[in-house]
Amino acid sequence: MDISKTNRLSLVEQVIVQIESLIESGTWSVGTRLPPELELMQQFDVSRNTLREAIRALVHAGLLKTRQGSGSFVSSSSVLGAVLHRRIQKSNILETLEVRHALEREAAQLAAIRRNEEDIARLRMYISDCQAAAVAKNRQAYAESDIKLHKAIVEAAHNSVLIDLYEHMTESMQTSVHNLVEITSHSDFHQNIHSKLVTAIIEQNIDQAIEAVNEYIDQFKDALLEDIGGSS
Amino acid sequence: MDISKTNRLSLVEQVIVQIESLIESGTWSVGTRLPPELELMQQFDVSRNTLREAIRALVHAGLLKTRQGSGSFVSSSSVLGAVLHRRIQKSNILETLEVRHALEREAAQLAAIRRNEEDIARLRMYISDCQAAAVAKNRQAYAESDIKLHKAIVEAAHNSVLIDLYEHMTESMQTSVHNLVEITSHSDFHQNIHSKLVTAIIEQNIDQAIEAVNEYIDQFKDALLEDIGGSS
Repeated sequence: MDISKTNRLSLVEQVIVQIESLIESGTWSVGTRLPPELELMQQFDVSRNTLREAIRALVHAGLLKTRQGSGSFVSSSSVLGAVLHRRIQKSNILETLEVRHALEREAAQLAAIRRNEEDIARLRMYISDCQAAAVAKNRQAYAESDIKLHKAIVEAAHNSVLIDLYEHMTESMQTSVHNLVEITSHSDFHQNIHSKLVTAIIEQNIDQAIEAVNEYIDQFKDALLEDIGGSS
Repeated sequence: MDISKTNRLSLVEQVIVQIESLIESGTWSVGTRLPPELELMQQFDVSRNTLREAIRALVHAGLLKTRQGSGSFVSSSSVLGAVLHRRIQKSNILETLEVRHALEREAAQLAAIRRNEEDIARLRMYISDCQAAAVAKNRQAYAESDIKLHKAIVEAAHNSVLIDLYEHMTESMQTSVHNLVEITSHSDFHQNIHSKLVTAIIEQNIDQAIEAVNEYIDQFKDALLEDIGGSS
Protein backbone atom coordinates (compact mmCIF):
# COMPACT_ATOMS: atom_id res chain seq x y z
CA MET A 1 0.00 0.00 0.00
CA ASP A 2 2.74 2.42 0.95
CA ILE A 3 4.82 1.41 -2.05
CA SER A 4 2.00 1.86 -4.54
CA LYS A 5 1.26 5.29 -3.08
CA THR A 6 4.87 6.34 -3.55
CA ASN A 7 4.89 5.01 -7.10
CA ARG A 8 1.71 6.79 -7.96
CA LEU A 9 2.99 10.07 -6.52
CA SER A 10 6.18 9.81 -8.46
CA LEU A 11 4.36 8.88 -11.69
CA VAL A 12 2.12 11.94 -11.45
CA GLU A 13 5.17 14.04 -10.64
CA GLN A 14 7.05 12.57 -13.62
CA VAL A 15 4.22 13.43 -16.01
CA ILE A 16 4.04 16.95 -14.56
CA VAL A 17 7.76 17.47 -15.06
CA GLN A 18 7.62 16.17 -18.63
CA ILE A 19 4.68 18.38 -19.59
CA GLU A 20 6.34 21.37 -17.90
CA SER A 21 9.50 20.88 -19.91
CA LEU A 22 7.54 20.53 -23.16
CA ILE A 23 5.92 23.88 -22.32
CA GLU A 24 8.99 25.71 -21.00
CA SER A 25 11.10 24.57 -23.97
CA GLY A 26 8.47 26.01 -26.30
CA THR A 27 7.60 22.66 -27.93
CA TRP A 28 4.09 23.33 -26.74
CA SER A 29 3.65 27.10 -27.03
CA VAL A 30 0.95 29.24 -25.40
CA GLY A 31 -2.41 28.47 -27.03
CA THR A 32 -1.42 24.94 -28.08
CA ARG A 33 -4.14 22.35 -27.57
CA LEU A 34 -2.85 19.21 -25.87
CA PRO A 35 -3.07 15.93 -27.82
CA PRO A 36 -6.05 13.65 -26.99
CA GLU A 37 -6.04 11.88 -23.64
CA LEU A 38 -5.42 8.42 -25.15
CA GLU A 39 -2.39 9.64 -27.06
CA LEU A 40 -0.91 11.26 -23.94
CA MET A 41 -1.57 8.14 -21.87
CA GLN A 42 0.45 6.16 -24.43
CA GLN A 43 3.16 8.79 -24.77
CA PHE A 44 3.78 8.99 -21.00
CA ASP A 45 2.85 5.33 -20.43
CA VAL A 46 0.44 6.14 -17.58
CA SER A 47 -3.19 5.51 -16.64
CA ARG A 48 -6.02 7.93 -17.26
CA ASN A 49 -6.20 8.83 -13.56
CA THR A 50 -2.50 9.62 -13.33
CA LEU A 51 -2.66 11.77 -16.46
CA ARG A 52 -5.72 13.64 -15.23
CA GLU A 53 -4.18 14.34 -11.84
CA ALA A 54 -1.05 15.71 -13.51
CA ILE A 55 -3.14 17.94 -15.75
CA ARG A 56 -5.18 19.21 -12.81
CA ALA A 57 -1.97 20.10 -10.95
CA LEU A 58 -0.74 22.00 -14.03
CA VAL A 59 -4.09 23.79 -14.33
CA HIS A 60 -3.70 24.81 -10.71
CA ALA A 61 -0.11 25.96 -11.37
CA GLY A 62 -1.47 28.18 -14.16
CA LEU A 63 0.33 26.45 -17.05
CA LEU A 64 -2.78 24.83 -18.53
CA LYS A 65 -6.44 25.75 -18.89
CA THR A 66 -9.18 23.22 -19.53
CA ARG A 67 -12.21 24.18 -21.57
CA GLN A 68 -15.42 22.20 -21.14
CA GLY A 69 -15.58 19.64 -23.91
CA SER A 70 -12.55 20.83 -25.87
CA GLY A 71 -9.60 19.58 -23.87
CA SER A 72 -6.63 21.36 -22.34
CA PHE A 73 -4.66 24.29 -23.68
CA VAL A 74 -1.30 25.80 -22.76
CA SER A 75 -2.06 29.10 -21.00
CA SER A 76 1.40 30.25 -19.84
CA SER A 77 4.94 29.56 -20.98
CA SER A 78 6.38 29.04 -17.49
CA VAL A 79 5.39 28.45 -13.89
CA LEU A 80 7.17 31.64 -12.83
CA GLY A 81 5.25 33.56 -15.50
CA ALA A 82 1.92 32.15 -14.33
CA VAL A 83 2.60 32.89 -10.66
CA LEU A 84 3.90 36.39 -11.34
CA HIS A 85 0.85 37.01 -13.50
CA ARG A 86 -1.48 36.09 -10.63
CA ARG A 87 0.55 38.24 -8.22
CA ILE A 88 0.44 41.22 -10.56
CA GLN A 89 -3.31 40.92 -11.07
CA LYS A 90 -3.65 41.53 -7.33
CA SER A 91 -1.53 44.69 -7.33
CA ASN A 92 -2.09 48.10 -8.83
CA ILE A 93 -0.47 49.09 -12.10
CA LEU A 94 1.84 51.72 -10.55
CA GLU A 95 3.37 49.14 -8.19
CA THR A 96 4.13 46.84 -11.11
CA LEU A 97 5.51 49.70 -13.17
CA GLU A 98 7.89 50.72 -10.40
CA VAL A 99 9.30 47.22 -10.21
CA ARG A 100 9.57 46.96 -13.97
CA HIS A 101 11.42 50.26 -14.05
CA ALA A 102 13.82 49.04 -11.38
CA LEU A 103 14.63 46.10 -13.66
CA GLU A 104 14.98 48.40 -16.69
CA ARG A 105 17.40 50.69 -14.84
CA GLU A 106 19.58 47.76 -13.83
CA ALA A 107 19.36 46.30 -17.34
CA ALA A 108 20.47 49.55 -18.99
CA GLN A 109 23.55 49.74 -16.78
CA LEU A 110 24.52 46.11 -17.26
CA ALA A 111 23.80 46.27 -20.99
CA ALA A 112 26.16 49.23 -21.32
CA ILE A 113 28.87 47.03 -19.81
CA ARG A 114 28.10 43.66 -21.41
CA ARG A 115 26.46 44.21 -24.80
CA ASN A 116 28.14 42.23 -27.59
CA GLU A 117 28.11 42.62 -31.39
CA GLU A 118 24.94 40.55 -31.72
CA ASP A 119 23.15 42.74 -29.15
CA ILE A 120 24.25 45.89 -30.96
CA ALA A 121 22.88 44.60 -34.28
CA ARG A 122 19.50 43.84 -32.70
CA LEU A 123 19.31 47.18 -30.89
CA ARG A 124 20.02 48.99 -34.17
CA MET A 125 17.37 46.96 -35.98
CA TYR A 126 14.60 47.60 -33.44
CA ILE A 127 15.35 51.29 -33.03
CA SER A 128 15.06 51.74 -36.79
CA ASP A 129 11.80 49.73 -36.75
CA CYS A 130 10.50 52.12 -34.08
CA GLN A 131 11.50 55.12 -36.17
CA ALA A 132 9.87 53.71 -39.31
CA ALA A 133 6.63 53.01 -37.42
CA ALA A 134 6.67 56.53 -35.94
CA VAL A 135 7.11 58.08 -39.40
CA ALA A 136 4.25 55.93 -40.73
CA LYS A 137 2.19 56.92 -37.65
CA ASN A 138 1.43 53.22 -37.13
CA ARG A 139 0.75 52.97 -33.41
CA GLN A 140 0.40 49.20 -33.24
CA ALA A 141 3.67 48.63 -35.13
CA TYR A 142 5.38 51.24 -32.96
CA ALA A 143 4.26 49.58 -29.74
CA GLU A 144 5.40 46.16 -30.98
CA SER A 145 8.85 47.40 -31.98
CA ASP A 146 9.09 49.30 -28.71
CA ILE A 147 8.47 46.09 -26.75
CA LYS A 148 11.09 44.26 -28.83
CA LEU A 149 13.58 47.07 -28.27
CA HIS A 150 13.15 46.99 -24.49
CA LYS A 151 13.39 43.21 -24.50
CA ALA A 152 16.64 43.42 -26.51
CA ILE A 153 18.07 45.91 -24.00
CA VAL A 154 17.25 43.58 -21.12
CA GLU A 155 18.75 40.63 -23.02
CA ALA A 156 21.95 42.64 -23.58
CA ALA A 157 22.35 42.69 -19.78
CA HIS A 158 23.02 38.92 -19.96
CA ASN A 159 21.34 38.08 -16.66
CA SER A 160 18.83 35.25 -16.97
CA VAL A 161 16.91 36.06 -13.76
CA LEU A 162 16.50 39.67 -14.84
CA ILE A 163 15.33 38.57 -18.30
CA ASP A 164 12.75 36.14 -16.89
CA LEU A 165 11.29 38.59 -14.36
CA TYR A 166 11.19 41.41 -16.90
CA GLU A 167 9.54 39.40 -19.65
CA HIS A 168 6.89 37.83 -17.45
CA MET A 169 6.13 41.18 -15.90
CA THR A 170 5.80 42.84 -19.29
CA GLU A 171 3.56 40.02 -20.57
CA SER A 172 1.27 40.41 -17.55
CA MET A 173 1.06 44.15 -17.95
CA GLN A 174 0.13 43.78 -21.60
CA THR A 175 -2.85 41.67 -20.69
CA SER A 176 -3.89 43.87 -17.76
CA VAL A 177 -3.44 47.32 -19.28
CA HIS A 178 -5.58 47.43 -22.38
CA ASN A 179 -4.42 50.87 -23.30
CA LEU A 180 -0.69 50.24 -22.92
CA VAL A 181 -0.29 50.53 -26.69
CA GLU A 182 -2.07 53.85 -26.56
CA ILE A 183 0.15 55.13 -23.77
CA THR A 184 3.35 53.82 -25.32
CA SER A 185 2.66 55.30 -28.73
CA HIS A 186 1.35 58.50 -27.13
CA SER A 187 4.80 59.89 -26.84
CA ASP A 188 6.56 60.77 -30.06
CA PHE A 189 9.22 62.35 -27.88
CA HIS A 190 10.14 58.81 -26.78
CA GLN A 191 12.01 58.53 -30.05
CA ASN A 192 14.91 60.72 -29.03
CA ILE A 193 15.23 59.19 -25.59
CA HIS A 194 15.30 55.69 -27.06
CA SER A 195 18.02 56.71 -29.49
CA LYS A 196 19.95 58.27 -26.62
CA LEU A 197 19.61 55.09 -24.55
CA VAL A 198 20.67 52.76 -27.36
CA THR A 199 23.59 55.00 -28.28
CA ALA A 200 24.71 55.10 -24.64
CA ILE A 201 24.60 51.29 -24.42
CA ILE A 202 26.50 50.84 -27.68
CA GLU A 203 29.13 53.39 -26.58
CA GLN A 204 29.27 51.84 -23.11
CA ASN A 205 28.40 55.15 -21.49
CA ILE A 206 26.81 53.96 -18.23
CA ASP A 207 25.90 57.38 -16.84
CA GLN A 208 24.12 58.42 -19.99
CA ALA A 209 22.29 55.08 -20.15
CA ILE A 210 20.94 55.61 -16.62
CA GLU A 211 19.99 59.20 -17.44
CA ALA A 212 18.08 58.14 -20.56
CA VAL A 213 16.21 55.39 -18.69
CA ASN A 214 15.22 57.83 -15.95
CA GLU A 215 13.95 60.29 -18.56
CA TYR A 216 11.70 57.83 -20.36
CA ILE A 217 10.44 56.37 -17.10
CA ASP A 218 9.38 59.84 -15.95
CA GLN A 219 7.65 60.51 -19.24
CA PHE A 220 5.96 57.12 -19.25
CA LYS A 221 4.67 57.70 -15.71
CA ASP A 222 3.36 61.13 -16.67
CA ALA A 223 1.57 59.67 -19.71
CA LEU A 224 0.10 56.88 -17.59
CA LEU A 225 -1.09 59.20 -14.82
CA GLU A 226 -2.61 61.48 -17.43
CA ASP A 227 -4.36 58.48 -18.95
CA ILE A 228 -5.64 57.24 -15.59
CA GLY A 229 -6.67 60.69 -14.48
CA GLY A 230 -7.92 62.20 -17.73
CA SER A 231 -10.60 61.20 -20.21
CA SER A 232 -9.86 58.25 -22.48
CA MET B 1 -20.08 11.60 -15.26
CA ASP B 2 -19.18 15.04 -16.55
CA ILE B 3 -20.87 16.69 -13.62
CA SER B 4 -19.12 14.56 -11.02
CA LYS B 5 -15.78 15.30 -12.69
CA THR B 6 -16.43 19.00 -12.49
CA ASN B 7 -17.49 18.71 -8.87
CA ARG B 8 -14.41 16.71 -8.01
CA LEU B 9 -12.14 19.22 -9.73
CA SER B 10 -13.73 22.12 -7.97
CA LEU B 11 -13.58 20.33 -4.60
CA VAL B 12 -9.85 19.69 -4.96
CA GLU B 13 -9.39 23.27 -6.11
CA GLN B 14 -11.41 24.55 -3.14
CA VAL B 15 -9.25 22.62 -0.67
CA ILE B 16 -6.10 23.90 -2.40
CA VAL B 17 -7.28 27.50 -2.15
CA GLN B 18 -8.20 27.10 1.53
CA ILE B 19 -4.85 25.55 2.46
CA GLU B 20 -3.03 28.21 0.44
CA SER B 21 -4.78 30.99 2.29
CA LEU B 22 -4.05 29.35 5.67
CA ILE B 23 -0.38 29.35 4.66
CA GLU B 24 -0.19 32.77 3.01
CA SER B 25 -2.00 34.40 5.95
CA GLY B 26 0.58 32.90 8.30
CA THR B 27 -1.94 30.80 10.24
CA TRP B 28 0.19 27.84 9.18
CA SER B 29 3.75 29.17 9.19
CA VAL B 30 6.79 27.57 7.55
CA GLY B 31 7.70 24.38 9.42
CA THR B 32 4.16 23.78 10.71
CA ARG B 33 3.05 20.16 10.57
CA LEU B 34 -0.42 19.75 9.06
CA PRO B 35 -3.14 18.27 11.30
CA PRO B 36 -3.88 14.53 10.83
CA GLU B 37 -5.63 13.45 7.63
CA LEU B 38 -8.91 12.59 9.37
CA GLU B 39 -9.10 15.99 11.02
CA LEU B 40 -8.46 17.77 7.69
CA MET B 41 -11.07 15.60 5.94
CA GLN B 42 -13.62 16.73 8.53
CA GLN B 43 -12.47 20.36 8.51
CA PHE B 44 -12.77 20.67 4.71
CA ASP B 45 -15.63 18.15 4.50
CA VAL B 46 -13.97 16.12 1.73
CA SER B 47 -12.93 12.52 1.05
CA ARG B 48 -9.46 11.13 1.62
CA ASN B 49 -8.76 11.07 -2.15
CA THR B 50 -9.74 14.70 -2.63
CA LEU B 51 -7.60 15.79 0.30
CA ARG B 52 -4.61 13.78 -0.91
CA GLU B 53 -4.85 15.17 -4.42
CA ALA B 54 -4.96 18.73 -3.05
CA ILE B 55 -1.92 18.04 -0.89
CA ARG B 56 -0.02 16.54 -3.81
CA ALA B 57 -0.77 19.64 -5.91
CA LEU B 58 0.53 21.83 -3.07
CA VAL B 59 3.64 19.68 -2.74
CA HIS B 60 4.19 20.18 -6.44
CA ALA B 61 3.65 23.94 -6.08
CA GLY B 62 6.37 23.96 -3.40
CA LEU B 63 4.15 25.04 -0.49
CA LEU B 64 4.18 21.67 1.29
CA LYS B 65 6.67 18.86 1.77
CA THR B 66 5.68 15.34 2.77
CA ARG B 67 8.00 13.25 4.88
CA GLN B 68 7.65 9.46 4.80
CA GLY B 69 5.60 8.41 7.80
CA SER B 70 5.41 11.81 9.45
CA GLY B 71 2.86 13.72 7.40
CA SER B 72 3.02 17.04 5.58
CA PHE B 73 4.82 20.24 6.56
CA VAL B 74 4.60 23.80 5.32
CA SER B 75 7.79 24.43 3.33
CA SER B 76 7.21 27.91 1.89
CA SER B 77 5.06 30.87 2.89
CA SER B 78 3.78 31.62 -0.61
CA VAL B 79 3.53 30.16 -4.10
CA LEU B 80 5.51 33.09 -5.49
CA GLY B 81 8.23 32.44 -2.91
CA ALA B 82 8.41 28.74 -3.78
CA VAL B 83 8.56 29.37 -7.53
CA LEU B 84 11.15 32.14 -7.19
CA HIS B 85 13.17 29.88 -4.95
CA ARG B 86 13.25 27.17 -7.62
CA ARG B 87 14.14 29.71 -10.31
CA ILE B 88 16.96 31.14 -8.19
CA GLN B 89 18.41 27.70 -7.49
CA LYS B 90 18.92 27.36 -11.24
CA SER B 91 20.79 30.67 -11.58
CA ASN B 92 24.15 31.81 -10.33
CA ILE B 93 24.45 33.97 -7.25
CA LEU B 94 25.69 37.07 -9.11
CA GLU B 95 22.60 37.10 -11.33
CA THR B 96 20.35 36.98 -8.28
CA LEU B 97 22.38 39.66 -6.54
CA GLU B 98 22.09 42.02 -9.49
CA VAL B 99 18.32 41.69 -9.47
CA ARG B 100 18.15 42.13 -5.71
CA HIS B 101 20.27 45.25 -5.99
CA ALA B 102 17.98 46.63 -8.67
CA LEU B 103 15.10 46.23 -6.21
CA GLU B 104 17.14 47.82 -3.39
CA ARG B 105 18.01 50.83 -5.53
CA GLU B 106 14.37 51.39 -6.41
CA ALA B 107 13.33 50.83 -2.79
CA ALA B 108 15.81 53.40 -1.45
CA GLN B 109 14.48 56.06 -3.82
CA LEU B 110 10.84 55.34 -3.10
CA ALA B 111 11.49 55.07 0.65
CA ALA B 112 13.09 58.52 0.61
CA ILE B 113 9.83 59.83 -0.85
CA ARG B 114 7.25 57.76 1.06
CA ARG B 115 8.65 56.84 4.47
CA ASN B 116 6.27 57.67 7.32
CA GLU B 117 6.84 58.10 11.08
CA GLU B 118 6.43 54.39 11.72
CA ASP B 119 9.06 53.56 9.06
CA ILE B 120 11.46 56.09 10.56
CA ALA B 121 11.09 54.55 14.03
CA ARG B 122 11.84 51.07 12.69
CA LEU B 123 14.82 52.24 10.64
CA ARG B 124 16.29 53.96 13.72
CA MET B 125 15.77 50.83 15.82
CA TYR B 126 17.46 48.44 13.37
CA ILE B 127 20.39 50.72 12.64
CA SER B 128 21.11 50.97 16.35
CA ASP B 129 20.78 47.15 16.63
CA CYS B 130 23.36 46.84 13.84
CA GLN B 131 25.69 49.23 15.63
CA ALA B 132 25.33 47.41 18.95
CA ALA B 133 26.07 44.06 17.26
CA ALA B 134 29.11 45.53 15.52
CA VAL B 135 30.47 46.91 18.81
CA ALA B 136 29.90 43.51 20.45
CA LYS B 137 31.55 41.86 17.41
CA ASN B 138 28.56 39.51 17.24
CA ARG B 139 28.45 38.48 13.57
CA GLN B 140 25.25 36.48 13.72
CA ALA B 141 23.36 39.28 15.49
CA TYR B 142 24.80 41.80 13.05
CA ALA B 143 23.67 39.80 10.02
CA GLU B 144 20.18 39.40 11.48
CA SER B 145 19.78 43.12 12.20
CA ASP B 146 21.21 43.90 8.78
CA ILE B 147 18.51 41.76 7.12
CA LYS B 148 15.81 43.46 9.21
CA LEU B 149 17.16 46.90 8.33
CA HIS B 150 17.10 46.17 4.59
CA LYS B 151 13.62 44.70 4.87
CA ALA B 152 12.45 47.85 6.70
CA ILE B 153 13.90 50.04 3.94
CA VAL B 154 12.04 48.03 1.30
CA GLU B 155 8.83 48.23 3.35
CA ALA B 156 9.22 52.00 3.60
CA ALA B 157 8.89 52.08 -0.21
CA HIS B 158 5.24 51.02 0.25
CA ASN B 159 5.09 48.89 -2.90
CA SER B 160 3.71 45.41 -2.24
CA VAL B 161 5.12 43.79 -5.41
CA LEU B 162 8.58 45.13 -4.60
CA ILE B 163 8.30 43.87 -1.01
CA ASP B 164 7.23 40.38 -2.11
CA LEU B 165 9.94 39.97 -4.74
CA TYR B 166 12.63 41.33 -2.44
CA GLU B 167 11.71 39.19 0.55
CA HIS B 168 11.40 35.95 -1.39
CA MET B 169 14.65 36.65 -3.17
CA THR B 170 16.43 37.35 0.10
CA GLU B 171 14.99 34.21 1.70
CA SER B 172 16.22 32.10 -1.22
CA MET B 173 19.68 33.60 -1.10
CA GLN B 174 19.94 32.91 2.61
CA THR B 175 19.36 29.22 2.03
CA SER B 176 21.61 29.02 -1.01
CA VAL B 177 24.58 31.08 0.19
CA HIS B 178 25.77 29.50 3.39
CA ASN B 179 28.40 32.12 3.95
CA LEU B 180 26.16 35.13 3.43
CA VAL B 181 26.43 35.93 7.13
CA GLU B 182 30.18 35.80 6.82
CA ILE B 183 30.18 38.14 3.81
CA THR B 184 27.65 40.53 5.31
CA SER B 185 29.45 40.86 8.61
CA HIS B 186 32.83 40.99 6.88
CA SER B 187 32.48 44.64 6.28
CA ASP B 188 32.63 46.89 9.30
CA PHE B 189 32.73 49.79 6.86
CA HIS B 190 29.09 48.93 6.03
CA GLN B 191 28.20 50.73 9.22
CA ASN B 192 28.79 54.22 7.88
CA ILE B 193 27.11 53.54 4.58
CA HIS B 194 24.04 52.17 6.32
CA SER B 195 23.84 55.24 8.53
CA LYS B 196 24.22 57.42 5.45
CA LEU B 197 21.44 55.53 3.67
CA VAL B 198 19.02 55.66 6.61
CA THR B 199 19.75 59.34 7.20
CA ALA B 200 19.15 60.10 3.51
CA ILE B 201 15.80 58.27 3.61
CA ILE B 202 14.72 60.05 6.79
CA GLU B 203 15.76 63.44 5.38
CA GLN B 204 14.12 62.59 2.03
CA ASN B 205 17.39 63.16 0.20
CA ILE B 206 16.87 60.95 -2.88
CA ASP B 207 20.26 61.55 -4.50
CA GLN B 208 22.14 60.68 -1.35
CA ALA B 209 20.00 57.58 -0.85
CA ILE B 210 20.89 56.31 -4.33
CA GLU B 211 24.56 57.13 -3.77
CA ALA B 212 24.63 55.21 -0.48
CA VAL B 213 22.92 52.17 -2.04
CA ASN B 214 25.41 52.15 -4.91
CA GLU B 215 28.30 52.32 -2.46
CA TYR B 216 27.21 49.37 -0.34
CA ILE B 217 26.30 47.34 -3.42
CA ASP B 218 29.83 47.85 -4.79
CA GLN B 219 31.37 46.85 -1.48
CA PHE B 220 29.11 43.84 -1.13
CA LYS B 221 30.02 42.67 -4.63
CA ASP B 222 33.71 43.10 -3.88
CA ALA B 223 33.38 41.09 -0.65
CA LEU B 224 31.44 38.37 -2.47
CA LEU B 225 33.89 38.12 -5.38
CA GLU B 226 36.75 37.97 -2.89
CA ASP B 227 34.95 35.19 -1.05
CA ILE B 228 34.21 33.24 -4.24
CA GLY B 229 37.69 33.75 -5.60
CA GLY B 230 39.77 33.45 -2.43
CA SER B 231 40.20 30.71 0.14
CA SER B 232 37.38 30.18 2.60
